[in-house]
Amino acid sequence: MSSNDFPVPETQVLAVASHVVYGYVGNTMATFVMQSLGCEVAALNTVQFSNHLGYGQAKGTRATAKEITDLYEGLKDSYLDSFDMMLSGYLPGAASVEAVGTIARDLKYKATMKPGSFFWVLDPVMGDNGKLYVAEDVVPAYKGLIKDADLILPNQFEAETLSGVKIVDMETLKTAITTLHEKYRIPHILITSISLPEPGAATSLSVVGSTFTSTATPRMFGIKIPAIDCFFSGTGDMFAALMLVRFREAVNNVEGLMAKDAWISDDDVVGTELPLARATEKVLASMQEVLAKTKEKRDEELEKHSQKQQGMGMGEEDEKKMRLVRSKAAEVRLVRNLGSLRTPEVKFRAEDV
Amino acid sequence: MSSNDFPVPETQVLAVASHVVYGYVGNTMATFVMQSLGCEVAALNTVQFSNHLGYGQAKGTRATAKEITDLYEGLKDSYLDSFDMMLSGYLPGAASVEAVGTIARDLKYKATMKPGSFFWVLDPVMGDNGKLYVAEDVVPAYKGLIKDADLILPNQFEAETLSGVKIVDMETLKTAITTLHEKYRIPHILITSISLPEPGAATSLSVVGSTFTSTATPRMFGIKIPAIDCFFSGTGDMFAALMLVRFREAVNNVEGLMAKDAWISDDDVVGTELPLARATEKVLASMQEVLAKTKEKRDEELEKHSQKQQGMGMGEEDEKKMRLVRSKAAEVRLVRNLGSLRTPEVKFRAEDV
Repeated sequence: MSSNDFPVPETQVLAVASHVVYGYVGNTMATFVMQSLGCEVAALNTVQFSNHLGYGQAKGTRATAKEITDLYEGLKDSYLDSFDMMLSGYLPGAASVEAVGTIARDLKYKATMKPGSFFWVLDPVMGDNGKLYVAEDVVPAYKGLIKDADLILPNQFEAETLSGVKIVDMETLKTAITTLHEKYRIPHILITSISLPEPGAATSLSVVGSTFTSTATPRMFGIKIPAIDCFFSGTGDMFAALMLVRFREAVNNVEGLMAKDAWISDDDVVGTELPLARATEKVLASMQEVLAKTKEKRDEELEKHSQKQQGMGMGEEDEKKMRLVRSKAAEVRLVRNLGSLRTPEVKFRAEDV
Repeated sequence: MSSNDFPVPETQVLAVASHVVYGYVGNTMATFVMQSLGCEVAALNTVQFSNHLGYGQAKGTRATAKEITDLYEGLKDSYLDSFDMMLSGYLPGAASVEAVGTIARDLKYKATMKPGSFFWVLDPVMGDNGKLYVAEDVVPAYKGLIKDADLILPNQFEAETLSGVKIVDMETLKTAITTLHEKYRIPHILITSISLPEPGAATSLSVVGSTFTSTATPRMFGIKIPAIDCFFSGTGDMFAALMLVRFREAVNNVEGLMAKDAWISDDDVVGTELPLARATEKVLASMQEVLAKTKEKRDEELEKHSQKQQGMGMGEEDEKKMRLVRSKAAEVRLVRNLGSLRTPEVKFRAEDV
């Protein structure tokens, strides 16, 4: 394999997220995904847990905000802070959200004289399906943070929380995106899962993105995807890591765009022609392939297990064990699906919304 | 890429070593190496530092022995402890050496009824070139540990420290290996760098390995390699990670061997025909390719730097910066040299010693 086989030019990424010993979420997911696409990844781990919280239990420790700051200071001390991009995911509290904001602003400030030389992808991990799963004070901390991000990847609930707009139809979706562009001056927004009731149709999952114009007007596109009927942990982190690489690739394919501040396309580019749209298509293609293969393996494993269990009664302990076995079986199959990460077949195209 | 493209059947590895944010040593090195060869890696990080100690400075924290034990307990609580192999590297003190011993013995005990189903590769990181770089009490802790390991990877100094035999020629080398086989009952030994003065010849570097017979007699082989004139950090961890995968591959290629206790070859297999010899050939081939490419890139970078510096005087601060720049330039080029990890060209063959 030569370096031409990689989709992006040499890229140094600072990835700030959680680490689990077993399985794939946070940096454990993001690091391998970005490395397999040719990026150099500096993984700054905000927690070390035995496993992700989908198991309902875990052991481990959280890094304090000071530890996060110290690690970054350590990098600076040795001139190891020349990053092209930064990816930030789950942070264990408001103080660490602040600490990561300080790091990102420092990297951004250093890049002031060289537009486009630093780009921050922020996944504002706060909750899902109408529920917060972080402390209340993390919300205002993120509101202070996102105005310095270049691309944010909220899910529907997080987009609502940040914009203050409840998303119930296309109109309110557009209002939420406009608010995020205008109020926080975020150039690129991608809402990673939107589920709107459609009369007479099955609920489908949509991803909706936008890059603002020079007047902060949204340029929107959407991609509808069939929902996979299974819950997998770490898919948000997988999405973010793929997005970081694929967006850089798409921007690199447009002459001169990488040297523009925040990689914002000229005003004559429409939503469906944005590099963000091209990137999202590839990201979703990889996701669909890897998750379909994961579901297949998971079903095989659970089948084996249920044969063993046949005829036995289920006590409370057995049920707990079964829940844990199900969580393990649903861990994303990553390392043996390199091909789906590197050369996915694009099936779903960006459309006007 | 299909799963047939990987050298080993599905393999779950527990890797216990250090983590650095920037660069490649410990688990940061070993995880990607093993993942790129198709292994599922559970990385239990014993420290998190900003960078490796070759820079002369770093910030970060060490995990306590209790934190290491807790993380493993967390895995057990959720039935995430069915590992096929374990790799242990740098440990931050005698207490964590003990903690890792307890983990390995627990995994070994669980595998008692199924010979060959668990294999522990131990890199007894203690020092190099005649000097200890861990606390004094780590030495006896390792002496207590290695008798449960299946394969150990000491350098010359560590082999001397563990065996109590000073290695000055082939005779004493053989005595050291015999002692490790007999006294600690370690089935497989690989001494990763031996430099013996040869009258009239340039000093060359040798790797010497042995798998004992049913009577604990050594079966030795050696591979001479040209030394690369540059110091790289993390090469020991790279060697260990490659070795773990390639040894499993070589054992898997011998019918029935994977189901034998500690994967010990029949007594009629000679040293140069051991799976350990086959594995070492491939490991060294990958190492030579990756390090040659690393040196090339490093020289390019230092050249660029020295042009910028031309004509300027060097103050104390400049000299410190230059040392740091040199360390950074020598970081192993890993992610873009996948081909050398996966399909190296074997040039140096195992020979009798």
